[in-house]
Amino acid sequence: MLRTHTCGELRLSDVEKEQEIILCGWVRRIRDKGKLLWIDLRDRYGITQLFLEEDSTDPKLLELVREKMGRECVIKATGKLIERTSKNLDIPTGEVELKVTSLEILNGSKTPPFLVEDDTDGGDELRMKYRYLDLRRPKLQNNMMLRHKMAQAMRRYLDTKDFMEIETPFLIKSTPEGARDFVVPSRMHPGEFYALPQSPQTFKQILMLGGYDKYFQIVRCFRDEDLRADRQPEFTQIDCEMSFVSQEDILNNFEGLLKYLFKELKGINIENDFPRMTYDEAMKTYGNDKPDIRFGMKFKEMNAVTKGRDFKVFDDAELVVGIKADDCAGYSRKQLDALTKFVKKPQIGATGLIYLKCNADGTLKSSVDKFFNEEDLKKWAELFDAKAGDLILVLAGNADKTRKAMSELRLEMGNQLDLRKADDYKPLWVLDFPLLEWGEEENRWFAMHHPFTSPKKEDLEKLNSNPADVRADAYDLVLNGVEVGGGSIRIYDRPLQEKMLSFLGFSDEEAKAQFGFLMDAFEYGAPPHGGIALGFDRLCALFGGEQSIRDFIAFPKNNAGKDLMIDAPAKIDEKQLDELEIKVDLKAKV
Amino acid sequence: MLRTHTCGELRLSDVEKEQEIILCGWVRRIRDKGKLLWIDLRDRYGITQLFLEEDSTDPKLLELVREKMGRECVIKATGKLIERTSKNLDIPTGEVELKVTSLEILNGSKTPPFLVEDDTDGGDELRMKYRYLDLRRPKLQNNMMLRHKMAQAMRRYLDTKDFMEIETPFLIKSTPEGARDFVVPSRMHPGEFYALPQSPQTFKQILMLGGYDKYFQIVRCFRDEDLRADRQPEFTQIDCEMSFVSQEDILNNFEGLLKYLFKELKGINIENDFPRMTYDEAMKTYGNDKPDIRFGMKFKEMNAVTKGRDFKVFDDAELVVGIKADDCAGYSRKQLDALTKFVKKPQIGATGLIYLKCNADGTLKSSVDKFFNEEDLKKWAELFDAKAGDLILVLAGNADKTRKAMSELRLEMGNQLDLRKADDYKPLWVLDFPLLEWGEEENRWFAMHHPFTSPKKEDLEKLNSNPADVRADAYDLVLNGVEVGGGSIRIYDRPLQEKMLSFLGFSDEEAKAQFGFLMDAFEYGAPPHGGIALGFDRLCALFGGEQSIRDFIAFPKNNAGKDLMIDAPAKIDEKQLDELEIKVDLKAKV
Repeated sequence: MLRTHTCGELRLSDVEKEQEIILCGWVRRIRDKGKLLWIDLRDRYGITQLFLEEDSTDPKLLELVREKMGRECVIKATGKLIERTSKNLDIPTGEVELKVTSLEILNGSKTPPFLVEDDTDGGDELRMKYRYLDLRRPKLQNNMMLRHKMAQAMRRYLDTKDFMEIETPFLIKSTPEGARDFVVPSRMHPGEFYALPQSPQTFKQILMLGGYDKYFQIVRCFRDEDLRADRQPEFTQIDCEMSFVSQEDILNNFEGLLKYLFKELKGINIENDFPRMTYDEAMKTYGNDKPDIRFGMKFKEMNAVTKGRDFKVFDDAELVVGIKADDCAGYSRKQLDALTKFVKKPQIGATGLIYLKCNADGTLKSSVDKFFNEEDLKKWAELFDAKAGDLILVLAGNADKTRKAMSELRLEMGNQLDLRKADDYKPLWVLDFPLLEWGEEENRWFAMHHPFTSPKKEDLEKLNSNPADVRADAYDLVLNGVEVGGGSIRIYDRPLQEKMLSFLGFSDEEAKAQFGFLMDAFEYGAPPHGGIALGFDRLCALFGGEQSIRDFIAFPKNNAGKDLMIDAPAKIDEKQLDELEIKVDLKAKV
Repeated sequence: MLRTHTCGELRLSDVEKEQEIILCGWVRRIRDKGKLLWIDLRDRYGITQLFLEEDSTDPKLLELVREKMGRECVIKATGKLIERTSKNLDIPTGEVELKVTSLEILNGSKTPPFLVEDDTDGGDELRMKYRYLDLRRPKLQNNMMLRHKMAQAMRRYLDTKDFMEIETPFLIKSTPEGARDFVVPSRMHPGEFYALPQSPQTFKQILMLGGYDKYFQIVRCFRDEDLRADRQPEFTQIDCEMSFVSQEDILNNFEGLLKYLFKELKGINIENDFPRMTYDEAMKTYGNDKPDIRFGMKFKEMNAVTKGRDFKVFDDAELVVGIKADDCAGYSRKQLDALTKFVKKPQIGATGLIYLKCNADGTLKSSVDKFFNEEDLKKWAELFDAKAGDLILVLAGNADKTRKAMSELRLEMGNQLDLRKADDYKPLWVLDFPLLEWGEEENRWFAMHHPFTSPKKEDLEKLNSNPADVRADAYDLVLNGVEVGGGSIRIYDRPLQEKMLSFLGFSDEEAKAQFGFLMDAFEYGAPPHGGIALGFDRLCALFGGEQSIRDFIAFPKNNAGKDLMIDAPAKIDEKQLDELEIKVDLKAKV
């Protein structure tokens, strides 16, 4: 190695060893006080201070620093470790410095376009273009280290539980169900295409049929969807499957994994079982299938206590629902107006917000005093078990939409009251998802999870009579209001799989062409099986205490699916198109 | 779990525990002796024998087995563990059997199209089509387990050496240098394409520039090449890169990794350093840049001892070269004819084979006695230090072609003499590869490794005067005649990289469009760095003692790049093509 130590490891106890020390790294900054000169040298392990002084250092070295060296230069420094006179106890190397005897610039640097520090002045696009500089920021280096450690810990845990990591192919076949595939034209078979996997779903099922029992893979997946904020066209999944198990076994196994990760990476011991909630309960109580249970503010349905007072908004509403914000009766007119404005945003879609203040003096004051007398309002307060000082916020309208809007309002109140702390981890299982959801646009049923999910045995008979009510053996793992994973028990016999596909609008021919191999396979000894997939990018972000996944991916794409550093996607040679026997066929832009 | 134990774990000591045992697995075979009936139950952990007898077992169970159960059925068996009367000490569970009290068929099976045993009667294509059955064979399960363990061990080793695993993107940009890319049309940017990476080369270099120091990734790579036997369009690479290192550091690190793997997976302690050989020496001594050094038979150049005897074949030859096969003077006419036929095969391309037998009685007998007298032949024998009983085989002609042919002959002799044992592991470093190789067809220089490989400093000046003689800081790791890895020290400054690309025929514009981001990055503090990539599929096959990589990949493609199980590639919907704004444009087949 060109160095004897990293910039993160030297301590006061190394001083007395009196060895020659060589460090390599990047110049973070230079402080030149005339007779004395210091350089902060940085690598991924830390920062060590270099020291030069006019009286005792070779003047050529000082000249080199002053004339050739700038921020982000790569240098090699040789010297002797000494104790610092003014110590910096904020960093582990802060008690020592390297008295430089020799110095070499390994490579120069132009002035970086933004600060290579945790608090940078670079915008998102600039940081993506110069990703190598962005990746030098200690914060990103910590994120990448967290990601590395998390992957290692997962593999360790799953290995000790007899899971085998098995690699599944990336060049597979396009399937019409689910999100849009990225496709790959085949040169050897012109006119035909591979597709990149949205997940290794069918392959992991085939592995169960192959007897592998307990499979996992930390694997890249691809979805060609219009990108919303914080979605990436390629993302990483911890993909798992088990045979000869019930749902309970899967929940226990992966609850164990999460507990292990919390302990290994965050030092957090979660003793209790993760709470569980049915989908129906989650929707009724939080208006959301991934409730953030770091705070309460559970929904109360208020139709019974609001009916018959000639307030049309409530009387006509399918649902009147409220939440209670503790100690918020002091909210000002302005604050309440802002909340009203918030719920009326098009993406939230409520028509208005009604409130009830349980004032500190015991009086009740609502925004609908015209329709409801004190007696009425008291009933509201009682429903919520409200105390003096609390605020009740009420929405009304179509049940689904109102729940959705109230869920947003609840989360907003959680933010305003600082009830959603990044380092407060509250995992939750949501169970018994519906098997199907109705696609308004397409006018047909869709699989809520995917077409391989098993309906609950006891609900099977409802598949024809009342499809909306059929529940699936499907579950989600939710952490702090974020869905970090989901899975199901799978169908493993041909007739049920055929029925399911036909229900989803596949013709016999289509079903055979797409999933014939899987249904054929079911006829050669398929074991009962099920699994789960966790979103690795999102889990890293949550463990890192941040919302955005971008800074936990080394080379993310922007919202237009572009890699700004390498400038991809890009045009390719005519020769390549010709070999693939395809043509670009651009539509006229209107 | 549906089971209390796996089929691989029950032992004699479990009998006295007298617990109720439940096993799940696949029916391997049923032996029905009338009053007594046995079932071999298989899962990935092993085989356990189930036992039923007419006198004491519920008759319904015997009926179930006889009427409904066949090979590869999935069943659940409950019972009591007993000691076997006739033990099978070949398997760890062979001293016990499960006396069945209850039996359930979890799923039936049609008769499999081939035997699900280590020795199967299924052909390659059939086994790929029914890969789930093939994957049930214990041999393949062992291969997959070896692969899983190898990956785990690699990660463990690299993690303890401070390497970080960092994921690089799969949707990147097509580059003209090297093999052909698979491309992915972009829907969001019609007319533009992503490419799948042939390796994460530039990204790992960018990571070094980002300060990551020691990077690795076990990662899928893609090459759209015409498939030769045992090449796959997607393959897995252990990709590594280090900063602030010399070539020596890289060799040491990965020699350490290989030693660790040998110890962990094979129980083999390799104490000595791996031998090293220059490319020139390898070519001169073995005619091959990946010599199999499990056996000797080194080349001897014979021009000096064969010249001037009016034997035109030798006199006109650029190179006369021989190998000595110990104790093979007894080779029959027929055997020698077969060898001659072997070297004359078009893919080997020699024009003939000359031999010298050093007979047991001390006489010398060659196939060119007409031209060479005993004195001459004695000189040949002396050159090889041949003893009575040895056989010398000689080829002559153009130097490159003759070396290549002799290398093939040497390997063939190694096979015939059983000198290439699968469990004899002989690693080797080949160093100092040429920087460039001449492309006859294209009439230009190509990078032998890739365009980012650093020329040796001392050879730099020859780049213009004598490019063929410029050596690179490039190295290969060879194991038993197979290249399992290769790497180099990289260029890390802009002017040299520009010069290199221009030498390889890139215009300034092309260089900028393709690798501008990397050269720009070199200007912001690039550390010296280098790396290596190991072929994971091949390493698994070698550790498994086999030649073919196919049985070490869960879902390989056939030689036409097809996945026969899922039938990929395949046609896609017009709607998909339309959204991508591309058209299939098939050439008329001639």
